[in-house]
Amino acid sequence: MILRIDLLQTELPPPSDPDPVGAAAVQELLGGKYGEMSTFMNYTYQSFNFRNRQGARPFYDLVASIAAEEFGHIELVSAAINTMLTGATEGKPGELGDLSAVKGVRNTQHFIAGGAGTLVQDSNAKPWNGDYVFASGDLIEDLTHNFFLETGARNNKLKVYEMVEHPAARALTGYLLVRGGVHQVAYARALEKLTGADLMKLFPSPRIPTDLIPECQPHIKRGEHLKLYRFSPSDFAEIKAVFNGPHPETGEDLFVADEVSPEGAPPFDLPSQPAVFAPGPEPEMLAEVSAKLRKAAGLPAKPTGVVANNGDGKGVVDKVKDAVS
Amino acid sequence: MILRIDLLQTELPPPSDPDPVGAAAVQELLGGKYGEMSTFMNYTYQSFNFRNRQGARPFYDLVASIAAEEFGHIELVSAAINTMLTGATEGKPGELGDLSAVKGVRNTQHFIAGGAGTLVQDSNAKPWNGDYVFASGDLIEDLTHNFFLETGARNNKLKVYEMVEHPAARALTGYLLVRGGVHQVAYARALEKLTGADLMKLFPSPRIPTDLIPECQPHIKRGEHLKLYRFSPSDFAEIKAVFNGPHPETGEDLFVADEVSPEGAPPFDLPSQPAVFAPGPEPEMLAEVSAKLRKAAGLPAKPTGVVANNGDGKGVVDKVKDAVS
Amino acid sequence: MILRIDLLQTELPPPSDPDPVGAAAVQELLGGKYGEMSTFMNYTYQSFNFRNRQGARPFYDLVASIAAEEFGHIELVSAAINTMLTGATEGKPGELGDLSAVKGVRNTQHFIAGGAGTLVQDSNAKPWNGDYVFASGDLIEDLTHNFFLETGARNNKLKVYEMVEHPAARALTGYLLVRGGVHQVAYARALEKLTGADLMKLFPSPRIPTDLIPECQPHIKRGEHLKLYRFSPSDFAEIKAVFNGPHPETGEDLFVADEVSPEGAPPFDLPSQPAVFAPGPEPEMLAEVSAKLRKAAGLPAKPTGVVANNGDGKGVVDKVKDAVS
Amino acid sequence: MILRIDLLQTELPPPSDPDPVGAAAVQELLGGKYGEMSTFMNYTYQSFNFRNRQGARPFYDLVASIAAEEFGHIELVSAAINTMLTGATEGKPGELGDLSAVKGVRNTQHFIAGGAGTLVQDSNAKPWNGDYVFASGDLIEDLTHNFFLETGARNNKLKVYEMVEHPAARALTGYLLVRGGVHQVAYARALEKLTGADLMKLFPSPRIPTDLIPECQPHIKRGEHLKLYRFSPSDFAEIKAVFNGPHPETGEDLFVADEVSPEGAPPFDLPSQPAVFAPGPEPEMLAEVSAKLRKAAGLPAKPTGVVANNGDGKGVVDKVKDAVS
Amino acid sequence: MILRIDLLQTELPPPSDPDPVGAAAVQELLGGKYGEMSTFMNYTYQSFNFRNRQGARPFYDLVASIAAEEFGHIELVSAAINTMLTGATEGKPGELGDLSAVKGVRNTQHFIAGGAGTLVQDSNAKPWNGDYVFASGDLIEDLTHNFFLETGARNNKLKVYEMVEHPAARALTGYLLVRGGVHQVAYARALEKLTGADLMKLFPSPRIPTDLIPECQPHIKRGEHLKLYRFSPSDFAEIKAVFNGPHPETGEDLFVADEVSPEGAPPFDLPSQPAVFAPGPEPEMLAEVSAKLRKAAGLPAKPTGVVANNGDGKGVVDKVKDAVS
Amino acid sequence: MILRIDLLQTELPPPSDPDPVGAAAVQELLGGKYGEMSTFMNYTYQSFNFRNRQGARPFYDLVASIAAEEFGHIELVSAAINTMLTGATEGKPGELGDLSAVKGVRNTQHFIAGGAGTLVQDSNAKPWNGDYVFASGDLIEDLTHNFFLETGARNNKLKVYEMVEHPAARALTGYLLVRGGVHQVAYARALEKLTGADLMKLFPSPRIPTDLIPECQPHIKRGEHLKLYRFSPSDFAEIKAVFNGPHPETGEDLFVADEVSPEGAPPFDLPSQPAVFAPGPEPEMLAEVSAKLRKAAGLPAKPTGVVANNGDGKGVVDKVKDAVS
Repeated sequence: MILRIDLLQTELPPPSDPDPVGAAAVQELLGGKYGEMSTFMNYTYQSFNFRNRQGARPFYDLVASIAAEEFGHIELVSAAINTMLTGATEGKPGELGDLSAVKGVRNTQHFIAGGAGTLVQDSNAKPWNGDYVFASGDLIEDLTHNFFLETGARNNKLKVYEMVEHPAARALTGYLLVRGGVHQVAYARALEKLTGADLMKLFPSPRIPTDLIPECQPHIKRGEHLKLYRFSPSDFAEIKAVFNGPHPETGEDLFVADEVSPEGAPPFDLPSQPAVFAPGPEPEMLAEVSAKLRKAAGLPAKPTGVVANNGDGKGVVDKVKDAVS
Repeated sequence: MILRIDLLQTELPPPSDPDPVGAAAVQELLGGKYGEMSTFMNYTYQSFNFRNRQGARPFYDLVASIAAEEFGHIELVSAAINTMLTGATEGKPGELGDLSAVKGVRNTQHFIAGGAGTLVQDSNAKPWNGDYVFASGDLIEDLTHNFFLETGARNNKLKVYEMVEHPAARALTGYLLVRGGVHQVAYARALEKLTGADLMKLFPSPRIPTDLIPECQPHIKRGEHLKLYRFSPSDFAEIKAVFNGPHPETGEDLFVADEVSPEGAPPFDLPSQPAVFAPGPEPEMLAEVSAKLRKAAGLPAKPTGVVANNGDGKGVVDKVKDAVS
Repeated sequence: MILRIDLLQTELPPPSDPDPVGAAAVQELLGGKYGEMSTFMNYTYQSFNFRNRQGARPFYDLVASIAAEEFGHIELVSAAINTMLTGATEGKPGELGDLSAVKGVRNTQHFIAGGAGTLVQDSNAKPWNGDYVFASGDLIEDLTHNFFLETGARNNKLKVYEMVEHPAARALTGYLLVRGGVHQVAYARALEKLTGADLMKLFPSPRIPTDLIPECQPHIKRGEHLKLYRFSPSDFAEIKAVFNGPHPETGEDLFVADEVSPEGAPPFDLPSQPAVFAPGPEPEMLAEVSAKLRKAAGLPAKPTGVVANNGDGKGVVDKVKDAVS
Repeated sequence: MILRIDLLQTELPPPSDPDPVGAAAVQELLGGKYGEMSTFMNYTYQSFNFRNRQGARPFYDLVASIAAEEFGHIELVSAAINTMLTGATEGKPGELGDLSAVKGVRNTQHFIAGGAGTLVQDSNAKPWNGDYVFASGDLIEDLTHNFFLETGARNNKLKVYEMVEHPAARALTGYLLVRGGVHQVAYARALEKLTGADLMKLFPSPRIPTDLIPECQPHIKRGEHLKLYRFSPSDFAEIKAVFNGPHPETGEDLFVADEVSPEGAPPFDLPSQPAVFAPGPEPEMLAEVSAKLRKAAGLPAKPTGVVANNGDGKGVVDKVKDAVS
Repeated sequence: MILRIDLLQTELPPPSDPDPVGAAAVQELLGGKYGEMSTFMNYTYQSFNFRNRQGARPFYDLVASIAAEEFGHIELVSAAINTMLTGATEGKPGELGDLSAVKGVRNTQHFIAGGAGTLVQDSNAKPWNGDYVFASGDLIEDLTHNFFLETGARNNKLKVYEMVEHPAARALTGYLLVRGGVHQVAYARALEKLTGADLMKLFPSPRIPTDLIPECQPHIKRGEHLKLYRFSPSDFAEIKAVFNGPHPETGEDLFVADEVSPEGAPPFDLPSQPAVFAPGPEPEMLAEVSAKLRKAAGLPAKPTGVVANNGDGKGVVDKVKDAVS
Repeated sequence: MILRIDLLQTELPPPSDPDPVGAAAVQELLGGKYGEMSTFMNYTYQSFNFRNRQGARPFYDLVASIAAEEFGHIELVSAAINTMLTGATEGKPGELGDLSAVKGVRNTQHFIAGGAGTLVQDSNAKPWNGDYVFASGDLIEDLTHNFFLETGARNNKLKVYEMVEHPAARALTGYLLVRGGVHQVAYARALEKLTGADLMKLFPSPRIPTDLIPECQPHIKRGEHLKLYRFSPSDFAEIKAVFNGPHPETGEDLFVADEVSPEGAPPFDLPSQPAVFAPGPEPEMLAEVSAKLRKAAGLPAKPTGVVANNGDGKGVVDKVKDAVS
């Protein structure tokens, strides 16, 4: 089972100019064959289906904990897409022309099916499907698959980086390239441990050094390219039996973080988009009811959730803005 | 982001007689339109796409935390399917006839694509897909959807319960009917809070009282039909503003549990199935390498993971057997 | 727009021994690429999309009215499937084992997703989809398609006839082979009228004379192989400009019926199947409520609908039984 | 079975400026998960699969007759799309550049696969499929589904209304919002009758009063928001046992119309589009052959079909123009 | 089995201005229901599944050899698409903005999934699938299908011709219209031989004479509209038993070519597109390694493959340019 | 383009006892994600989309020629499936009960859609689709994919070998395991040449030595595990620059065959199956027409095609029988 921490794994910038055409492209990183739904679900089901896991515990722990990190990635991609869709519509709900500005965008379902919201689709609006999951049960083969999957994912992230210049997309791909790179190394190293084959010369693949990408730098500086988190308060202690040795590009030592997970960052509470009824045509009504219910339940008058823009004096917005500029 | 606790939300029995035909039917509860992939992913993406969540925090918290519980449900269904597939094949890997016993089963990909492992498909082998996710962004509409989704899910669980008599399937459906019932109530109650419509007379739907199902009784006795967990060490405190009042069938008070999550139960470490190369044709080799790596990393000689059948004297197997008999 | 007459186009036998495996095969005639959903939807959309229909009115009328007949065919196939599924489950709702008899059938969704009811799928459980519709807008090409579609449909009907011996399947295919044959001729004749190409030598295709099939005889005797109905009280008068001349197999004259439609036959009111909650786990409750509502609305105490088995002394059941024996 | 009346259920405006990009968006209302193919097919198959319909006749009649109305809706959406596609191409057939104006539209298959004609797809060009049909056989559950389906449909209609300003789209959504609203009420009322749950407070959902939409007004003035038609000359008399009581938004009485169906309006006979060979590259040839065939069959020299623009002096075009301006 | 000749069946022009929007449209001719994947795969599987082929050898030979020609067609369409995609991106790999020029194109996967490369999809980005293959095994029916398939293919080719003015698309459609026309005739003639039905009056369908299309002229002048090739050094001698008699449009005699296949033309070696890493971000590195490997293997220093633009003095580029101007 | 040689790449046994359930399983090797359609189409499109192929000619030649071999593999798998389906139906066409023996098989479309013929589907009847093709354009990444694809393919072949004991399936998998193994090595070696990474320790994967499989022995004895063919009379000379060095399992030298292709073996001409109208309900009629046409065309009286069972005294049948016993 899982526990949920209501933070993003890294900071994303607040909404700025909307970019619904770019958002449609970023969908590839969510629902594409090599998107984060695929990494999340592949490792999750491989861990569910792992037989004799006590006999191969270090490898089980590796796959199971990377799966947990990937949930954070579908969350991040969604946050980026939602950020990019914010502001694309205007006007009062039920008013002719409110959505005419997005009539010609690449994925109209962002606005017709959704409320300026992420879809579980790729950049061509094809839904992700369960047959993208490869879980042969054969450990060597699953690891081979995972190494290849991360390679394909890295290719797609680089291309989306080149294609979409919106700040949210740049912050997203900068972070995912670094963390995806760690996973790519982890699976290659696991294969080495099992077979003795030297795979490190395959890096980087595609052959574009991560440190060429400016948006990766803040994360590299913090060492995010070298470590795995366990993403569990209680389990997955044996990752370190596999994830060690030198990083293939930098030679630095790989290691398992002492912290259970990255510190995380509060998400921006994205504003209502009344023209698409999100969270409803009259958000004030929802707020009123919520306040009343909170009161009846003996909860504080102000919402208890932590978001980046709730004016709590912690200056999160500014910090984020700096990070992405 | 999430943290992962390597326990099942409830106990499942150990493998007994294999039932690959039944396992194919149970797949409906995983990858069907009304299966647990759908509940997990619908609530997850509704939470990701929730706009102005501070303004409707109690509802955001409700959807986001139920999403977290649903991860445990895809895990449970997978564990049940894997249990039912265990033992269906025999013989040495690469030997003619090893899989002849399963040539005629309903879903041959369990053995050809997988290693006697769960697929992300429904009972007719159609893969789950991302367009099963409904996230309109309109809170009232999403809640209406969720109430309906849980109703459909309950229908399917009852039918699979009637269809498959394998102990793992019975333990699974007994538990899911109870917990799904809580979610069905939660979404109906949320709609009531927002609109004033009295939905409680719709229960139970389908009109079969949960307490008719013997396998639900242990969970009802423990009050699992009355409570929601937050599934977060830090967040989702406002659920209780929505989830309260009387249970529509029993009149007992609904409440939010003090514990973050159910206690959970260690999963059975399902045995190797060499004929399908899971976790490999020679599991011993994997165990040897793992032991060596563990040693090199300064880890204990014995695997650190907790499973139900690792002979640790805690009698988990017996406890589970009692529970399902 | 349409009006609905609550009668089947021909009689089907009452439920007898269930045949859920056969029912899965019959699905090909509903949701297969060459099933009745395809004929219904192809002609319907071709009529919707028909440009300059005044300029080619006889052809528009032909396509539009055959479309109307095809609705009756999806209704008939569904009725046959539902008849074959009747009785396959037993026991009280919510009872372990109620559906164990159908755990291994070819299409478990008949019972898990449906209530012993037809699905919009083919014989391999693949859903029918809208890209099976061909509507190029080019009349000659659409007619060529339609001729081919009816040829494929006839092939599949013959094979299902050979495969499934259940009385409902036999009555179904016997009727559909005759009526489908008329449509096949109609489209070939239309092409002849437009181009002068002599297509009549292509009949029968597949080269199995319809009169070899015993179940076709009652319909041939009534001349159903020779006529088209307008299926409209007011429109489609110009069919007869196209549909005339000799039948390619018998030489008899083709003609447009004076009657708007076949006389039709009341369907059997298929019995409740409580184990799959159809129409509910407690059908009596539904009947009570219905009676009360009927009374409140000033309607007769007895249901006003006409079905084959409502004991109204008209002997419908016997008549049907004779017809199919 | 059905009879077909060759009229639209309401008037649509004649072609004006083409809007192929808007037409692609309107496709969501045809082939989307919540489009009219879904409403038509869901209710149709629920009626086919309805067991013990005599025991729950008022509900059977309700579902079966609404199904019939929905055929008129797929017809209307198609007519609107075809109207919007009219004029988008020009030039002689087989001429380079004829279609260059539509090379970049969102759905190129409108012109490559079709002849400026409707496709059975959604706004992202994904085909409608049969698994969008929900027919559990459990009456309460099917009605719950139908209420939710109409809610989703209303959401999408509102958004398409906001997005597409073409007169045909406005006339279409104005009408469908009113009639879909009636169906939404009908299913909620049916659930109330069966369970006692008060669902009327859920209206309107989404919470945008229908009378805010100017294009709905003509239909509201005619009382189209209050009545159901039986859509059968002979059947479905028991609808009124369910469909009665106050309208949730206006408090006016709901009722079943005395007329079998709406009066209807002749469709515009959309002009040939020779560049896409609809109805052929040389429509004149088709007209000549048709005239000859008509004559040979003893039919009048002029086409007998009724269309809005056949110069019969009844001023249909003007009437329509007024209605939509 | 097959042998591969590394030549295109006809000349295509070299890259000029990129046209990624047009390339998305041309995809219909590759992966559409009526595209070349369909013709290739339909005839291929019909030949594989052909029973009693000795008994119907002339027809087997016809289908099997046309299948072989169709491989050349998927190759040609791909070459055209790749030509049109060339030059659409620029800049150094891994550089922000490199792909911003193609962010809004109709099929972004051309650049994200591929390296400015063809996808096995249609013009709406839907993948080709195996159920587009019709292989009933009934010879008459399969030929009927094939005649219809070629008719649909011709329709789509004409429309793409009208839509896309890029030189590569024009050269492509000019050639395919001629060769597809031969196949359309071949299947109609085969049906005539088997049934006696006179199908020649159906030509041309769509009713646009091929000789209206300027880009078809060079091929018609060479007689490519009259002949079939055997596409085998050893087999398929009996085609000529079927493929003979007058061409339906010109009256000229159809015949089987003495040459095994068309002479063919070397393809242009399309240039690297480093921004999408095709064939890699540093093509020079690949060239170096290749040169080294060639040397080690005792191969010539210069690449041995024949391409249109390898500066070998044969003036291929100029010849092609003339042909398409 | 290609030329077609009407021979199988290896011998398959003649039909014996039918095994339609086994045939459904073998479909995974044709239309599964890791089946031969995938290998064929992946390498084919990678070769089509290969940019700057002169700069990386040895690698282009490798991919392009392996693609050609894979056509032979889809042909072989189809031949095996067709062999296994032969004899499963009996009786006269159009006769009730002819297909009752196959009513319950796993893939009924083998008989309803096809004429006891192969479908382009996997073992769960899901059609192969074009998005199984990976062609990133990045050479290193495509080779990584191809190595993984062959690994997955080998896994599936081993499992089908274990599952299906029919002689045709055994002969098929025995051959494909050997040839697929060569491709797996080839792609790994290519990656080594490009990056220096030592991948040979990954073999065999899955870790079951090929020489454990008795059905592989005849092919290993002939050295088929060591060589690549060019599959071109004229091209692909540079394969040998990549494909050399020791075989990872045996240490023997890899080499490129002098022969263009394997010698091949004539296929069995599978007998008519009149009950499914293949090649028609009256095969004699087809034979008569064929004989007449052959005569008119000046061809020999006897069919000119070479098949394994045409009584030409060469004893092919016996030879094949020996090979598979």
